[in-house]
Amino acid sequence: MDRGKGRQPNPVGIEASLVYHSGMRNALDLETVRLSDDGRSVIILDQTLLPGKAEYRELRTPEEIWTAIKNLQVRGAPAIGVAAACGVAAVMQQENGSFEEASRRFSAVKAYLETARPTAYNLFWALDRMEKVLKGQTDTAGLKKALIREAEAIRSEDIAISRSIGELGFSLLRHGDGILTHCNAGSLATAKYGTALAPVYIALEHGWNDIRVYCDETRPLLQGARLTAFEMQSAGIDTTLICDSMASYVMKKGLVDIVIVGCDRVAANGDAANKIGTSGVAVLAHHYGIPFFVAAPSSTIDMSISSGAEIPVEERSPEEVTEMWYSHRMAPEGVKVLNPAFDVTDSSLITGIITERGIAYPPFGEAFMEMLSGGM
Amino acid sequence: MDRGKGRQPNPVGIEASLVYHSGMRNALDLETVRLSDDGRSVIILDQTLLPGKAEYRELRTPEEIWTAIKNLQVRGAPAIGVAAACGVAAVMQQENGSFEEASRRFSAVKAYLETARPTAYNLFWALDRMEKVLKGQTDTAGLKKALIREAEAIRSEDIAISRSIGELGFSLLRHGDGILTHCNAGSLATAKYGTALAPVYIALEHGWNDIRVYCDETRPLLQGARLTAFEMQSAGIDTTLICDSMASYVMKKGLVDIVIVGCDRVAANGDAANKIGTSGVAVLAHHYGIPFFVAAPSSTIDMSISSGAEIPVEERSPEEVTEMWYSHRMAPEGVKVLNPAFDVTDSSLITGIITERGIAYPPFGEAFMEMLSGGM
Repeated sequence: MDRGKGRQPNPVGIEASLVYHSGMRNALDLETVRLSDDGRSVIILDQTLLPGKAEYRELRTPEEIWTAIKNLQVRGAPAIGVAAACGVAAVMQQENGSFEEASRRFSAVKAYLETARPTAYNLFWALDRMEKVLKGQTDTAGLKKALIREAEAIRSEDIAISRSIGELGFSLLRHGDGILTHCNAGSLATAKYGTALAPVYIALEHGWNDIRVYCDETRPLLQGARLTAFEMQSAGIDTTLICDSMASYVMKKGLVDIVIVGCDRVAANGDAANKIGTSGVAVLAHHYGIPFFVAAPSSTIDMSISSGAEIPVEERSPEEVTEMWYSHRMAPEGVKVLNPAFDVTDSSLITGIITERGIAYPPFGEAFMEMLSGGM
Repeated sequence: MDRGKGRQPNPVGIEASLVYHSGMRNALDLETVRLSDDGRSVIILDQTLLPGKAEYRELRTPEEIWTAIKNLQVRGAPAIGVAAACGVAAVMQQENGSFEEASRRFSAVKAYLETARPTAYNLFWALDRMEKVLKGQTDTAGLKKALIREAEAIRSEDIAISRSIGELGFSLLRHGDGILTHCNAGSLATAKYGTALAPVYIALEHGWNDIRVYCDETRPLLQGARLTAFEMQSAGIDTTLICDSMASYVMKKGLVDIVIVGCDRVAANGDAANKIGTSGVAVLAHHYGIPFFVAAPSSTIDMSISSGAEIPVEERSPEEVTEMWYSHRMAPEGVKVLNPAFDVTDSSLITGIITERGIAYPPFGEAFMEMLSGGM
């Protein structure tokens, strides 16, 4: 495979669906989020149209960026962070007034973008990091250049971290492995490569063509059916979509050799919060004796909470279960619905946690201390 | 609650949705399948319209009956058997020729109806039983009456079996219990009461108003969201709909005290085949220490197969996962899909099997022998 060479990002505003259907075997060419060449806009792949269409959006105003994040056109914690950083840098390119005026504008845009998805930790993290750039600057022209540099750095680091996770995760794979994953922790959730799916991309780079991926469809938002199945299929991977309820069936049949999932937050004891359904997959893997790995940047490890019990679980609207995507309502009017956005997987069910700094194994507390102090 | 008294089946052809919305607290009044008063037609509740509408269909011709079974307007193994028995009895009421002519007509209708759902064991069983009626008859008038009697008997026995299962299952319940169920093994899957849900109806009859039911939505056909949630809510039960992937979450939170599911076929060792996803629920219940019961008529126990490994699993069309119910396709074109219709739960994960003859506990082989020889 000739990856990297002759790479042609799709022109802005042109539908990429032709490319996707033409047998191109590299989903990575669909860049999730980046600055435009002149740095005055952010270009995102509109994930709400996947898998039917791969279409880019060029975002120029704070309102457009806010809406794209709010409406999940760009989603996945790392990708949201990159989108916000690139967004504020792009908007600031339009500033030509005094440094004070530019600083005030920056603060206003930052505060506004932070309201797009208030529960997304990476959104705040990325915008705080962009704000630190202001300190070293004295004039607007310098500030504008510095913001572009920082946004590019955040994006590059995200790619580098994902790539490291991919390489470490790849070391766990054997030829012919069946990998089961839940939700989408792929290239679409980051600037590139992803976390849980990064090892698969690295395997492709090594010319491995015998990896099989089972995608849980991931109700109710169908990130597995819409995004992971799309990513893996368009990358040329042997991809099988299953309903979440079929994970036990494929595991029992011996089709799954390893489970790899992403993660939103890890407690100091290794308990991991991820998309709803992950804890069930972990219980099944444990029952069937299948290794269960979590892949996430080390910044996801939150040593300030001792266990997953301290992680609050967001409950989302009932309509996501009863109406969303459907041609008509599928459950009786007024029925109670529970719709937790994620669940916490007990560390006792986790074989290892793959970060860019290394793979942590139990006891996770000790492994994290060593890893975060640079010892791993 | 004043159940049974003043019971008013809805007039044929009139939408029952008004009744459903008017606060009537008894889903059992929605009769799944029965003969009309004159015995010349079968009246079914059209389950494809649930939960939006509770509407009855009056079926008079073999073609109408065939289509209703084929298109899942009536579904659930016991209910299909009753529909076929009532159907052939109703069609035969139109015969006025010689006994030979009537016999030929019976055979033709039987052979035709058997093609409606060739994998439904109860369809063949019910029609074979109807055929035996011919042997004792010599004239058309007598045959017609005997067929009506046999169809009514099949229906009554189905109700009696479900009721016994309900009473035995009820003995397992405690006040305040949270029951998790998968798919629909309720009144809609039988002539009345159901299997897995029958204990809930019996609890209601005893005036218990503190039972909570969690319905897995049951992808891909959504029997839980469309049918079980409807049945339980309209019966006045505290009903919560969850995605299949949320079962681990509610179990871990301590909301579930017992799991009860239905079953299509039980092997001699207790392995049980049921709707896809059941085996995963059983693994979760085992992990969280929650009792897991299967409820089914004793006729479901197949002593001719030693284990679940001998049960072939039907694979259904990919479109049920990628397109059905949705306003547009949700997965990339051409992606592989696995869509097994059911899975087999290991007997080691089953606490007990509730039949009309008693509750079997491990070792199931011995319990079944005792039960089926009448010792239980």
